[in-house]
Amino acid sequence: MFAKRLFILVLSVSTTFSLLSQENTDAFFIKKIHDTALTHSESYEWLRHLTKEIGGRLSGSPEAAAAVEFTRQMLDTLGLDSVWLMPVMVPHWVRGDQEIVRISDSALGSVELKAVALGGSVGTGSPGISGEVVEVRNFEELEELGSEGVNGKIVFFNRPFDPTQLNTFRAYGGAVGQRANGPSEAAKYGAAGVLVRSMASGLDDVPHTGSLRYRDDLPKIPAMAISTNDAELLSKALQAGPVRVYMEASCSQLPDKLSYNVIGEIRGRENPDEIILVGGHLDSWDVGEGAHDDGAGCVQAMDVLQLMKRLNYQPKRTIRCVLFMNEENGLRGGRKYAEEANRLGENHLVAIESDRGGFTPRGFTVAGNSHLFVERLTALQQWSSLLEPYYLHIKKGGGGADISPLRKYNTLLIGYEPDSQRYFDYHHTAADTFEAVNKRELELGSAAILSLVYLIDQYGLE
Amino acid sequence: MFAKRLFILVLSVSTTFSLLSQENTDAFFIKKIHDTALTHSESYEWLRHLTKEIGGRLSGSPEAAAAVEFTRQMLDTLGLDSVWLMPVMVPHWVRGDQEIVRISDSALGSVELKAVALGGSVGTGSPGISGEVVEVRNFEELEELGSEGVNGKIVFFNRPFDPTQLNTFRAYGGAVGQRANGPSEAAKYGAAGVLVRSMASGLDDVPHTGSLRYRDDLPKIPAMAISTNDAELLSKALQAGPVRVYMEASCSQLPDKLSYNVIGEIRGRENPDEIILVGGHLDSWDVGEGAHDDGAGCVQAMDVLQLMKRLNYQPKRTIRCVLFMNEENGLRGGRKYAEEANRLGENHLVAIESDRGGFTPRGFTVAGNSHLFVERLTALQQWSSLLEPYYLHIKKGGGGADISPLRKYNTLLIGYEPDSQRYFDYHHTAADTFEAVNKRELELGSAAILSLVYLIDQYGLE
Repeated sequence: MFAKRLFILVLSVSTTFSLLSQENTDAFFIKKIHDTALTHSESYEWLRHLTKEIGGRLSGSPEAAAAVEFTRQMLDTLGLDSVWLMPVMVPHWVRGDQEIVRISDSALGSVELKAVALGGSVGTGSPGISGEVVEVRNFEELEELGSEGVNGKIVFFNRPFDPTQLNTFRAYGGAVGQRANGPSEAAKYGAAGVLVRSMASGLDDVPHTGSLRYRDDLPKIPAMAISTNDAELLSKALQAGPVRVYMEASCSQLPDKLSYNVIGEIRGRENPDEIILVGGHLDSWDVGEGAHDDGAGCVQAMDVLQLMKRLNYQPKRTIRCVLFMNEENGLRGGRKYAEEANRLGENHLVAIESDRGGFTPRGFTVAGNSHLFVERLTALQQWSSLLEPYYLHIKKGGGGADISPLRKYNTLLIGYEPDSQRYFDYHHTAADTFEAVNKRELELGSAAILSLVYLIDQYGLE
Repeated sequence: MFAKRLFILVLSVSTTFSLLSQENTDAFFIKKIHDTALTHSESYEWLRHLTKEIGGRLSGSPEAAAAVEFTRQMLDTLGLDSVWLMPVMVPHWVRGDQEIVRISDSALGSVELKAVALGGSVGTGSPGISGEVVEVRNFEELEELGSEGVNGKIVFFNRPFDPTQLNTFRAYGGAVGQRANGPSEAAKYGAAGVLVRSMASGLDDVPHTGSLRYRDDLPKIPAMAISTNDAELLSKALQAGPVRVYMEASCSQLPDKLSYNVIGEIRGRENPDEIILVGGHLDSWDVGEGAHDDGAGCVQAMDVLQLMKRLNYQPKRTIRCVLFMNEENGLRGGRKYAEEANRLGENHLVAIESDRGGFTPRGFTVAGNSHLFVERLTALQQWSSLLEPYYLHIKKGGGGADISPLRKYNTLLIGYEPDSQRYFDYHHTAADTFEAVNKRELELGSAAILSLVYLIDQYGLE
């Protein structure tokens, strides 16, 4: 009995010891990842080039093509096992040089509003269109007005973000329907045009663009966003009496264009057929420099491979960086990628996307519809004690737009989650510039993602 | 037996139920605090006035006096039980209008460097001083050079922040000795002047001021900070050969001046003699607008009382807001406050300071030397599940400079901890402006502090 007890004791001590020692090894390596990211990341300089040298990278633009070439070249310098381009046809919408929204007649007189056309909007022609404005907060109010109240008018969607949402993406989710579907909803009742309150957390003078979705069975009417300050002004003018607005936008849709997803990978030495994908999207809106959305995510995904090389880490599984094209106005890159993965019979164990800005890390949100989802989430959460020193939480939540088409192929989707408070100050605006990204916050994001990639690579998802 | 078991079961169910229901009540109120802070905080507008209308508020300056008057007026509008000023004599250092650091002779030629005098530095007189530069990283290197290597020269302290410190305050702690004690250390060996690499996380063109401590037994020599980019440049010039620098600073120390701590409170309805203090410091450096340091902390402390009033919350204990004067170059306000508290026999249960910027919340750090410290920290940590939904952690750590003199009177000291990554991009510089503070991040800080105040007020520290 004594011998048996001793044996159990020894066994249990040695098991504990080896578990502890494994945990120490992991903790040590995760610290090393962070140290290296904070001293030898390339992400900030890559981002500088993408934003200051190249600039806004709307699908089909020369800037998008330059970004494909630049990131391919940078991946080529890293000594990866393969770097390649995946062709994809993308929509080609151009803004043109004229964007005017002006209160032409109101109790407050005539006022120029800060405005941008929504991506995908038809142009107004030149001169533009004029109309009386009707304000609504939602589609129910629009329906109540009906054709009688809307026909020939300009519909102004003015539902603000809910400021009490702690996560600003939820506030965005509660408001963005006006932008995406508002133009077609208004066209149902014969509206001549649409103005949308910018998708912003606060009050300022910067209009936010973003895509709309026209229904094929309804007339396509021009749609523009105005700044939140100007939305308040327009609403105030409407309280004082009838308001007429002049809208002009010279945007137009050109034929689709050839572009590319940019891909680089390090092959796994034990299970090369199991792929861990890290990605962001290379295209951005044209009005700013696409720094937080999503230059940051791209350079972090590239940085994961760069840091692995620098740390001399040889992964068990294949680690693949994918810079998707056309997230903003089509998701063609994401869709094409999943189709190709399926066609080639590739096994994507996990796909991690960084597309919520280059802010200070908060953790990861996990999505998936596999029967293994709960089990896999639990597996990830077992590493909480290793990640919490870096303030990284793992919770159920969204993955990312570009990786979402992989969902049906049993891939676990993980969204990198930085702090969200400032994101919608910059999102889809001229203010989304390099200067709005903090170097350390960006680098800590690379480190966070690589730390998770490391753990998944070491232990899988079981 | 059956009856007894049933009794125990009933008892345990009802206890659990009442605990749960209490926890729900607390969770509900903490949510309400956050909702109210995000919709009805006054903090951002107060900060706008403190920074854009008043500006940098160095002790003894007209701006500091204006800030005393403004914040007293604002507290007066809140319907508190008392608002008062506590007189305190403060140092009065002025920068003057001339600040020049120029490489006058080097292999790289002549270059103007971006520089500011350190707070408290003596001036150089006009014209200024010239000398050969010697670079050191620490006091050991300085000692090795000795009088022979240092006498008559300008000592350049160039130890950078350790970028691998996750918390930038630790990096600051590892570097700030050069600024605080460098001038007297250099004077020991006969140096003519001191240049210090700015206390900054990264590389940029903005010089950071901050206080120095002259030893009374050594000559006072002029000391200035140069931007981190210029520190790199100067170091490079020194690698190429001898460098002479010209320094001129017109700063000087004037006689002490009368100023005030600004105080407002809501009296407790059950234990009015137990005080929960929330505070920040009203003075700031003169080179910027003192937005993150520490306009943010002041308006958050005021906001705690404002939000309580708005929520119609009547505290059990006395909640007192203290805006301390002269944290930056003397701590006279904090010392005076603790003396007065002791003289009046006041019982400060807890003092919470917000003086780490208006960034997104991370939690609280707790300090104290009472024999009850561990017990009290444990009491606070019992509320973790209520605070974690807001990403608020409670850990052992620093309290705050202004409240530190209360430590010896058995007060538990708590430092509000926002995310630290960006703080030393702004700290003590011209870049510390209103625009660098995000409204939601600031408001979430008010909510975080009030949530903790609420829990301590409800349950004490046992």
